[in-house]
Amino acid sequence: MVAIYKNNFDMVADSLTLEQIQHCILEDISNYARPQLFKDLHEPIQYLLNIGGKRMRPALVLMAAQLYDNQINPYRNIALAVEVFHNFTLMHDDIMDQAPLRRGQMTVHEKWNTNTAILSGDAMMIEAYQLLCQEAHPRLHDLLKVFNEVAMGVCEGQALDMSFEKRADVNIEEYLNMIRLKTAVLLGGALQMGGVAAGASTQDAAHLYTIGESLGIAFQLKDDYLDAFGDPEKFGKQVGGDILADKKTYLSIELKNKLGDAGWKDWNDINWTGSQKIDNYKTAFKAHEIDVALLNACEHHSQQAVQHLDALSCREEQKHLLRETIENLLHRSH
Amino acid sequence: MVAIYKNNFDMVADSLTLEQIQHCILEDISNYARPQLFKDLHEPIQYLLNIGGKRMRPALVLMAAQLYDNQINPYRNIALAVEVFHNFTLMHDDIMDQAPLRRGQMTVHEKWNTNTAILSGDAMMIEAYQLLCQEAHPRLHDLLKVFNEVAMGVCEGQALDMSFEKRADVNIEEYLNMIRLKTAVLLGGALQMGGVAAGASTQDAAHLYTIGESLGIAFQLKDDYLDAFGDPEKFGKQVGGDILADKKTYLSIELKNKLGDAGWKDWNDINWTGSQKIDNYKTAFKAHEIDVALLNACEHHSQQAVQHLDALSCREEQKHLLRETIENLLHRSH
Repeated sequence: MVAIYKNNFDMVADSLTLEQIQHCILEDISNYARPQLFKDLHEPIQYLLNIGGKRMRPALVLMAAQLYDNQINPYRNIALAVEVFHNFTLMHDDIMDQAPLRRGQMTVHEKWNTNTAILSGDAMMIEAYQLLCQEAHPRLHDLLKVFNEVAMGVCEGQALDMSFEKRADVNIEEYLNMIRLKTAVLLGGALQMGGVAAGASTQDAAHLYTIGESLGIAFQLKDDYLDAFGDPEKFGKQVGGDILADKKTYLSIELKNKLGDAGWKDWNDINWTGSQKIDNYKTAFKAHEIDVALLNACEHHSQQAVQHLDALSCREEQKHLLRETIENLLHRSH
Repeated sequence: MVAIYKNNFDMVADSLTLEQIQHCILEDISNYARPQLFKDLHEPIQYLLNIGGKRMRPALVLMAAQLYDNQINPYRNIALAVEVFHNFTLMHDDIMDQAPLRRGQMTVHEKWNTNTAILSGDAMMIEAYQLLCQEAHPRLHDLLKVFNEVAMGVCEGQALDMSFEKRADVNIEEYLNMIRLKTAVLLGGALQMGGVAAGASTQDAAHLYTIGESLGIAFQLKDDYLDAFGDPEKFGKQVGGDILADKKTYLSIELKNKLGDAGWKDWNDINWTGSQKIDNYKTAFKAHEIDVALLNACEHHSQQAVQHLDALSCREEQKHLLRETIENLLHRSH
């Protein structure tokens, strides 16, 4: 009976769990052979790739592929390409942000130097394309179209983010567009590429992209929420970090909006200690119901993700893993 | 009679001259539409692309394509991709080298800032891939294989070049490998990609690569020669610039080799004025016949280029433009 079920057309019995998928990804990252030559170029790449992370993007590639094919092996290079590309953006963003640490470890430009981080990052982007092009995939052109557009979007998101630091008048639409580009398009691209490679229809490919993009926006909004209102025990980073750094987030942009220009100026003239500042901001966010508005926005984008998941042509049993993953990502407390 | 000849199978009458090819390239560069949004990201790209240069690489793409097809329009995006990629490497190399000027104009990191030059360079590399992937070319996978390998080679060349600055024991083989990677592989790739796109056989594609690689090495060696022995009236840069900057070149590496470690140490302990230094180095290069050895090495690689040009399956009349271009590049005095 089990054997019959395993060979059944709906493939459910053959689907891998998230743990199995992540096991494959970790295996691929650790087997990712580095040339013995040019250590200056390749050691920083290996270092950053092995620092860790949730490996959410390659998992999305493989989960999407699994919707249309009962094997994931043909898509593992695409998943790795997406993870390598993501880490390239981290390596260069860390230079631009002068970040000393990444996931608790020294950043590449700190451990080596800025030139090494620039050049290794460049090599990493090329490696992402090499991984994508490893096989002469029949849908290679489609995959590259998605990847190129997503990669350019991520650069545009970073450009917007940097420009926001110099501007006082960023509005919430601009902020949402920035997080869409900087974070969400790559999640959309990951799902779309996995689907396209495994034979998804044009309609399903578009749904997959929107699932990822909506998920990404909701995820980043949840991050903004948790920075202020997260449980310090569970939240990995310092609660209130964004507030102390005067970072532009959904919460601070909306607070400025509620207070008006004059009110915002007065608010910024006050000298608070660190913990007073965090407490007063949180009180103000709540008084103006910005926390509620933020959770509503988050819910709106989550619902969008779920609606497009519902619209996929695959059978409900096949969608189970992706549905569960979306829920876990959005209802996380850390 | 002319009309018959124009439609003749050998296509000679339809072949474009180098001037016509370069006209197309300049047109494509100036028409290269930049998105209206994200000016921070795209203005530096437009600036650098329009600073000028010989446009040698895109011309090689189109010259190679012309060997196998009587039209160049289908290959103009590939030519532009190669030029955009080359300019990406210039943008990032200028940061790493802290170069204030590029072709007499401010470098991007000087005119804007380092973060802008990092991010615009990243966007430029993605744009190169976008240009390559604009059409679903039947040989797209082959083109990307060449491009990826060449792009990685250029990064490896830059990594070697940077590592040489910290080393006193660089030998001539290492130096030749560095200039091969940093300069020559992209010329090889340009010719190969033009040929592959236009239908060259595997044999011809390999010959085209070797023509470009040999040409690139010979070109760079000639550059080393002209820096010391060029006519100041004709040579664009300051004659003796490499000597004053203690740059590792074919000449200085061989001089160190001839003098031995102790001799080289004594040589470097002497305090010369700038013009004395240039004169004494030039005298020493000649005394040890390093100038002759350099020109011989240059000639050897030029001969290789010509041999592989001879071996191409195309008819001799078709090779004329490429043969002339190789000769002009190698027998230049500036």
